[in-house]
Amino acid sequence: MKDKLVIIGGVAAGLAAAMQARRRSPEIAITVLEKSQDISYGACGIPYVISRKIPSLENLIVHSPDYFRDKHNIEIKLNCEATEIFPAKSALHVNDNGAKGEIGYTNLVIATGAAAICPPIPGHDLEGVHVIRHLSHARKLLIDLEQNCPHRKAVIVGAGYIGLELAESFCARGFQVTIVESSNNVMRTIGGSLCDRVVDELKRNGVEIIFGERVAAFEGQNGRIERIVTKNNLVVEADIACVGVGVTANSDLAKRAGLEIGTSGAITTDAYQRTSVANIYAAGDCCEVINRVSGKRVWFPLGQPAVKQGWVAGANACGVGAQEKYVGLIGTNIVKVFDMEVARTGLGVEEARESGFDVDVIESENYSRAGYYPNGSKIFTRLVYDRRGKLLGAQMAGKEGVAQRIDVYASALHASLKLEDIENFDLAYAPPFAPTIDPIQRAVHEAIKKQGNGF
Amino acid sequence: MKDKLVIIGGVAAGLAAAMQARRRSPEIAITVLEKSQDISYGACGIPYVISRKIPSLENLIVHSPDYFRDKHNIEIKLNCEATEIFPAKSALHVNDNGAKGEIGYTNLVIATGAAAICPPIPGHDLEGVHVIRHLSHARKLLIDLEQNCPHRKAVIVGAGYIGLELAESFCARGFQVTIVESSNNVMRTIGGSLCDRVVDELKRNGVEIIFGERVAAFEGQNGRIERIVTKNNLVVEADIACVGVGVTANSDLAKRAGLEIGTSGAITTDAYQRTSVANIYAAGDCCEVINRVSGKRVWFPLGQPAVKQGWVAGANACGVGAQEKYVGLIGTNIVKVFDMEVARTGLGVEEARESGFDVDVIESENYSRAGYYPNGSKIFTRLVYDRRGKLLGAQMAGKEGVAQRIDVYASALHASLKLEDIENFDLAYAPPFAPTIDPIQRAVHEAIKKQGNGF
Repeated sequence: MKDKLVIIGGVAAGLAAAMQARRRSPEIAITVLEKSQDISYGACGIPYVISRKIPSLENLIVHSPDYFRDKHNIEIKLNCEATEIFPAKSALHVNDNGAKGEIGYTNLVIATGAAAICPPIPGHDLEGVHVIRHLSHARKLLIDLEQNCPHRKAVIVGAGYIGLELAESFCARGFQVTIVESSNNVMRTIGGSLCDRVVDELKRNGVEIIFGERVAAFEGQNGRIERIVTKNNLVVEADIACVGVGVTANSDLAKRAGLEIGTSGAITTDAYQRTSVANIYAAGDCCEVINRVSGKRVWFPLGQPAVKQGWVAGANACGVGAQEKYVGLIGTNIVKVFDMEVARTGLGVEEARESGFDVDVIESENYSRAGYYPNGSKIFTRLVYDRRGKLLGAQMAGKEGVAQRIDVYASALHASLKLEDIENFDLAYAPPFAPTIDPIQRAVHEAIKKQGNGF
Repeated sequence: MKDKLVIIGGVAAGLAAAMQARRRSPEIAITVLEKSQDISYGACGIPYVISRKIPSLENLIVHSPDYFRDKHNIEIKLNCEATEIFPAKSALHVNDNGAKGEIGYTNLVIATGAAAICPPIPGHDLEGVHVIRHLSHARKLLIDLEQNCPHRKAVIVGAGYIGLELAESFCARGFQVTIVESSNNVMRTIGGSLCDRVVDELKRNGVEIIFGERVAAFEGQNGRIERIVTKNNLVVEADIACVGVGVTANSDLAKRAGLEIGTSGAITTDAYQRTSVANIYAAGDCCEVINRVSGKRVWFPLGQPAVKQGWVAGANACGVGAQEKYVGLIGTNIVKVFDMEVARTGLGVEEARESGFDVDVIESENYSRAGYYPNGSKIFTRLVYDRRGKLLGAQMAGKEGVAQRIDVYASALHASLKLEDIENFDLAYAPPFAPTIDPIQRAVHEAIKKQGNGF
């Protein structure tokens, strides 16, 4: 009898696993269970459909179920939710379009992803209160926008990167946008003066930000939101609200099946993407992996690592046994905030301290182009490093030239390089693209100088 | 008596050496001899002054001689040419503003740079025939352009990166531009279909290119150029001509002093930037250094490595002895050709073969952004690697996102990484900046797949 690989989840990690398993094994049966009606789409593009930069949600769909079925002999079951896993008998209970059933597997990959958190605040079920994570959420929001939103005041709850992307999207649609954030700053993934730059950019674009306020209630009449009330009784008018306060790993199914769950609440995996049960793998936003810089187990839900973990899980779950290793996560991330590129890689200061490093940090401002070349702008860099000269992390913000510069730091982190190595990189120089000594190296130089062992 | 450091040459490498020596030693006497009237300028910006993107040559000047004298106690002698070096007595003959003299030194740094080649073709001394390397050349060209050029046909001799930058500059000034190139392609630093992309970009901008033609004569009346005649008797009208056929190391002075000269014609240096004479160092475009990828001695005249070599030479020549090492050149370079970014790093195919590697090469086309995100464009990548999976070089061309992507490859080359390592990098992804799997990694993946040991 043929091996049967079952994959729960049909977006980034799940489909990467399915495709990789098929490349490795033309023979095995592969089935992907997707509880929604959508597979294979770029969820990261949703803010740009809301802003109308991308015409339709359809543009975000990469491949249809037929593509996987016809071209790769991968069975796709839509509206099919795995309700229980029974590791002892290698079987699942499913709710397949309303019909209950059981599916057996030789190997299983859990790629259930993460869910947007919507705190059970009074009024969160009012019409016009949205969370945005999946295509189905976006569909609902777009219909609401087209049918019900003439007044044009939008409130975004949360100033993380999803919140900021949504703020930009609503501005692009002509809304007056207010962000309500419970902490005193934007974007926990960066720090220091970089946060101020992001706040400046939001304000420059007319976004109002209220810090240090928690939402106590969504209020409205006739079942539709009209205002947000905070715990300090601040009232913010809202024709529409989006909650972007974070995501949580979809690990309940794994937990109920007795799989080991990490302190973050996500599924524990080893370097082969194996869970605590031999023939069950996990990949993507539902699981923890090793951070390559700290060596610690972390949960860092992002699309690109999800795809890579999916490849590893698929290669190992296709019947030949666990052979491929995931090399570990660096934690690289970029977000567009209006005209600003905001990026990070590696460890933040707190994370580095908690990981036991003797941490120092510097901030550096440098021009993106030769000083005399027009239209350059400042790049703000924040470097996290240990006092023995090893780079631990980098954060950058600027109007241009951030996106791939963060990748140079990410490469250095992958190779465990020291600040001195980076200072010695031979980087591309021409006046339209960089100053003679690149901002990457100027920042590193400042860190070395601060340590007193300057070049 | 105080140590005396003398530096010949006051642009990139020379001033980097002077500043680094001063940082290391507040005490020693430092003198910089510059044979022209200009120091401390960004020669790479000249094409953009010609195109009027930068208003004036003055904008290219970083610091005045007074800055070095007053702030750093570095003596700057303008119009002072070193005419002979006498290593045995540690002294120089100089022509100082027409007056002959002798200057002694404790340590000497030769940073004489490179000169633009102007072949002694009949008519090369006609008015309107230019070479562009130094600020003085640019001054002469700008005066010529303002006073004598109403007809507006420009011929550029040579399709290397200087020639292409100048072609763009003259187009920006409204000239009808023809490039005459003796070989059959543009830019020897890249290869394969990337050259075709560059040619397409030139043609799209109205530049005519004539390949396989050598200039036999510049011809004209009343002492001014009117046409170029090639060896095959092709005649090209020209109101003005610029020769950009390459540069040659200014190593004659060193050669006459008996210093070892490499096969390239540039001064031989060791990892400490020492020449064959103990207290004489060399840095920048006048010398050979070790290529970090091939381990071979190479001459690769470019601004950023020149500055770094200058730092090393200055640190070692300040009296404490040779302590700092130059880590070796990777050979990274970028040029803007109209709306295209064209870059390279590491070894080209020929260079890699000559260095004894078992070379293979792939080409890869990938999108700069998520497929659904507007205004993305194709990035063309050419990877050079050895069949055991080590990256040897990369070349890229595209309308956006090339400048710092080449730096990721340069970083990988610095760390001697394998293709597999690069495929495992954790790079920044967001739809406006990159597809989920970056072009960097897609290209690497194709190389790995070709080798049959795909992930």
